[in-house]
Amino acid sequence: MLDLSKQTQPVIQILCDFIHNEITSRGFQRAVLGLSGGLDSALSCFLATRALGAENVLAVRMPYRTSSPDSLEDAQKVVEATGVQSLTIPITEMAEPLIERFPEMGDLRRGNILARLRMVALFDQSAAFNGLVIGSGNKSEILLGYSTLFGDSAYALNPLGDLYKTQVRQLAKELGVPASILSKAPSADLWQGQTDENEMGFTYEEVDRLLYLLVEEGFTPQQCVAEGFSSAFVQKVVKRVQRNQFKWTVPPICKVNRVTIGYEDLDPARWGEFS
Amino acid sequence: MLDLSKQTQPVIQILCDFIHNEITSRGFQRAVLGLSGGLDSALSCFLATRALGAENVLAVRMPYRTSSPDSLEDAQKVVEATGVQSLTIPITEMAEPLIERFPEMGDLRRGNILARLRMVALFDQSAAFNGLVIGSGNKSEILLGYSTLFGDSAYALNPLGDLYKTQVRQLAKELGVPASILSKAPSADLWQGQTDENEMGFTYEEVDRLLYLLVEEGFTPQQCVAEGFSSAFVQKVVKRVQRNQFKWTVPPICKVNRVTIGYEDLDPARWGEFS
Repeated sequence: MLDLSKQTQPVIQILCDFIHNEITSRGFQRAVLGLSGGLDSALSCFLATRALGAENVLAVRMPYRTSSPDSLEDAQKVVEATGVQSLTIPITEMAEPLIERFPEMGDLRRGNILARLRMVALFDQSAAFNGLVIGSGNKSEILLGYSTLFGDSAYALNPLGDLYKTQVRQLAKELGVPASILSKAPSADLWQGQTDENEMGFTYEEVDRLLYLLVEEGFTPQQCVAEGFSSAFVQKVVKRVQRNQFKWTVPPICKVNRVTIGYEDLDPARWGEFS
Repeated sequence: MLDLSKQTQPVIQILCDFIHNEITSRGFQRAVLGLSGGLDSALSCFLATRALGAENVLAVRMPYRTSSPDSLEDAQKVVEATGVQSLTIPITEMAEPLIERFPEMGDLRRGNILARLRMVALFDQSAAFNGLVIGSGNKSEILLGYSTLFGDSAYALNPLGDLYKTQVRQLAKELGVPASILSKAPSADLWQGQTDENEMGFTYEEVDRLLYLLVEEGFTPQQCVAEGFSSAFVQKVVKRVQRNQFKWTVPPICKVNRVTIGYEDLDPARWGEFS
């Protein structure tokens, strides 16, 4: 069911157990996450705090010179509400040499550079803090490809990757994510005034209902139209998901030998604890 | 068979067909690759040139201030031998703000930052040149985890990912990769005097024979010892592969809904060309 509002508590428990198990089973106790000031990373931070304890979570703010001051402020509210450790690493100085080198660069290239530089700083903190990187990409974003490959979509584990944006909102409300974050329009904050919904041309509420039918219920595009969605909208979304599938698929390796990574089943755990 | 020296030509054809098919089937004609001056990226460049034509390949050199001048020179030899387009984007200015911010940082953190910044510059050139990023990680490196996650291990396609280092060398020789590249010790060139083999404590020739038995022939560690490998060496390699498996496995998402990315089979191509 797309509406989780009647079952927020058991789902929150599943998410916290996932975080705890994934981190401890790999021999870690701590986690690192990027805090943008938006809803998704706020939810990840609340979940990680509950799963691991505030002292084991490091939230990193990574503003660029055009980042909204509201974003930093909202991130600060999450730090205060959860009590996690925090650090601010501005990425402007890292970004400018590359951006200035290619003045013809448009918003999309610039946005991808920023998202990837945040990954660089965050994974470095992962090493420094000895914690795994918790991702915050939700299922709507992943399916629609509204993310940067090897940028915000890079993580060691992701508690939100199977939750539609609508569901993220329901859980965040239940967990006490600050109101200013719950109420603002989703935005990648890569340039001023950017909002996800303006850029994509539809609302998450609308697209989540369609994605749910296509992905979870196995409806064909034609059946979705029969359910009342406009044919143009269905076509737009279907094409978008198809075009962006490469972002959540392992990139191909050319098969030459007998047991190829990503093709044949290769599990070195099978070799046992050899001594 | 680990030794490809008797069948280099058919294997080269398979690799070139792979590059051509992967790129054209996704609607592209061009490729971008990082040229380090080392053997693997030299081979990728020769293969891409044969598969796509020199005019459709952009080789990017991304030196850091400690990079060996020999590396740049060897990269230049590959550019001249293949006739591909080329570009040099130094990453020093991008790296220093982050490296200087954390003076306690060791070689490993610094090396990972550099590898990831090269990914940032390379994927930006992918957008600028309208070409897909060809990776150069070989199978030995991938299995041993001797690579940076979301750094040199990030690509759109990888022709070398199923070739052991020994096999890479055989193909590179056949394709006419310059002698200075063929003869030098493999190195990530992240700090002066670094070589892969010193750092890992064994040679590729040695470890490739062991990996081949474990991975391709399905030998148990005990059977490898019976084949004459020392128990200590087998244990070291087995542990290393096990510990690094996360680098070539899709990071986990917490399952909440019915059809979860990476768990259930989700192929949007099935929705067809909807109009």
